[in-house]
Amino acid sequence: MAERLSAEARKSALAELPGWSETAGRDAIARTFTFKDFNEAFGFMSRAALVAEKNDHHPEWKNVYKTVEVVLATHDAGGVTKRDIDLAKAMNAIAGQLGVA
Amino acid sequence: MAERLSAEARKSALAELPGWSETAGRDAIARTFTFKDFNEAFGFMSRAALVAEKNDHHPEWKNVYKTVEVVLATHDAGGVTKRDIDLAKAMNAIAGQLGVA
Repeated sequence: MAERLSAEARKSALAELPGWSETAGRDAIARTFTFKDFNEAFGFMSRAALVAEKNDHHPEWKNVYKTVEVVLATHDAGGVTKRDIDLAKAMNAIAGQLGVA
Repeated sequence: MAERLSAEARKSALAELPGWSETAGRDAIARTFTFKDFNEAFGFMSRAALVAEKNDHHPEWKNVYKTVEVVLATHDAGGVTKRDIDLAKAMNAIAGQLGVA
């Protein structure tokens, strides 16, 4: 099982994850992605969903038209683990391909 | 443009929409769908996304693993319109095919 990252390890990982930040009041990380339209936003979600399902590690996310708010945490570990960092990296890579830095 | 439904028309439409209810503090309707797992939840979202895009009328929705919380309102009209009722019906039909009544 993935171990919960220390506050220091979390900060260090976030430094290499543009757009992501710690979530107030929760041991979780979050990013809001803003795309051009719903087509791109849901395209992003579809690709991220395949990654999530493959790794059996799923996001909490909310979509309103062209925005996708994502929160990542590992429930079993009670906080942020390497699995969240990996999914955040994968999401940034997918968004990057859609022109969202 | 779709016209905002009166409170009476909204209640009457909701009576024929199992699982949907009015949203507290907003002129909107909402339903939380609970599926078997992420595969089914995201499958539902994918089918509903195609309907939404085709009709150019999109949901606000949040997915956490097997649950999908949906809120529907028509921003241009400042409330619930026939377009929301139609999307809610389509979502119920898709969920029904996945065994969620």
